[in-house]
Amino acid sequence: MILGTVKGTVYSTRKMDNLKGLKFLMVQPVNGGRKDVFVAADTIGAGIGELVLVTTDQTTQYALDYPAPVDAMVIGIVDNPPAMES
Amino acid sequence: MILGTVKGTVYSTRKMDNLKGLKFLMVQPVNGGRKDVFVAADTIGAGIGELVLVTTDQTTQYALDYPAPVDAMVIGIVDNPPAMES
Amino acid sequence: MILGTVKGTVYSTRKMDNLKGLKFLMVQPVNGGRKDVFVAADTIGAGIGELVLVTTDQTTQYALDYPAPVDAMVIGIVDNPPAMES
Amino acid sequence: MILGTVKGTVYSTRKMDNLKGLKFLMVQPVNGGRKDVFVAADTIGAGIGELVLVTTDQTTQYALDYPAPVDAMVIGIVDNPPAMES
Amino acid sequence: MILGTVKGTVYSTRKMDNLKGLKFLMVQPVNGGRKDVFVAADTIGAGIGELVLVTTDQTTQYALDYPAPVDAMVIGIVDNPPAMES
Repeated sequence: MILGTVKGTVYSTRKMDNLKGLKFLMVQPVNGGRKDVFVAADTIGAGIGELVLVTTDQTTQYALDYPAPVDAMVIGIVDNPPAMES
Repeated sequence: MILGTVKGTVYSTRKMDNLKGLKFLMVQPVNGGRKDVFVAADTIGAGIGELVLVTTDQTTQYALDYPAPVDAMVIGIVDNPPAMES
Repeated sequence: MILGTVKGTVYSTRKMDNLKGLKFLMVQPVNGGRKDVFVAADTIGAGIGELVLVTTDQTTQYALDYPAPVDAMVIGIVDNPPAMES
Repeated sequence: MILGTVKGTVYSTRKMDNLKGLKFLMVQPVNGGRKDVFVAADTIGAGIGELVLVTTDQTTQYALDYPAPVDAMVIGIVDNPPAMES
Repeated sequence: MILGTVKGTVYSTRKMDNLKGLKFLMVQPVNGGRKDVFVAADTIGAGIGELVLVTTDQTTQYALDYPAPVDAMVIGIVDNPPAMES
């Protein structure tokens, strides 16, 4: 999974019907730069600045109540920035 | 998902039968360069210069009425370039 | 999808049984370099120097008559190098 | 698969229900740098500093007793750093 | 698919039960460097120094007799280093 920080929200009025009810967040990977920012769907309610765990590709479907064409989903909000053993 | 800008159209006469009816767009990721351009299928009708959300890999199938060998699909047109909290 | 140029053919005598009948091509992504070359399976008959569209991962299976362990398949031959709006 | 070293643990209280019972580890790929660190789920019990094999994407599901939205799973603990023939 | 050279073997005693019978090889992509080395499962019997074709992600399952959590599998041994048309 990718560990990232929520940086903003993406709004789309013209979109696929089966995306209704999903929020789209800009997520910047920890240790990544602006170039690495991607968009993840969210149903947990992550806020700007929160650290989140994101799963990708087909495994997103196990975080949804119905199939939807999204390849990145927030699966959890991280309690604290994890310590790294050197 | 990838946030990108539509840069052009790709035409292919000799192609798989189950690709009929799909439009193919050149998409440049936001914050990405020319080297990162990829091709996404589109059924929404995104135009040159529009900002789009693209899903990838197997999750493309949830944006199609029938199975097709495409690994990137436009799932929505973004209303405005999203603001990024620093 | 990846837009790439066919650069060569890969021959393999000792291979999985369910790969019989597939041709393997070296494909260099457009705007990519030698380091980015990958191998795609082909059933359309793309030739050296032709520009092709390649789909990846599990979606390759929708371009096959039977399941096969290939993660990249040529799905179309591109008519002309696409123009890019700047 | 990715060969990596366990660097830390990620804790998440607010998370998807079907993630209960999984431990989340920070994993740094061998030959990779800090920027490449990712998070893998673990049920084997890998410890900090151990060298692990990690599988990704949909194939994680074959390492689970039930479907879960995780795209990286520890599948084994490596006995010794592998020797590389030059 | 990735074209790579077998560089070594990875041994893991503590591993998932459904990995028994699979050999794990260090594979370095052709034109890639040490940083790009990854681990692929093998049932064909590729040896150190041999050039192999590797498929990734979910498509690995079509190269197995039973489902297993591996995201890279050797699918063939390449006869000769392929010539590249410039």
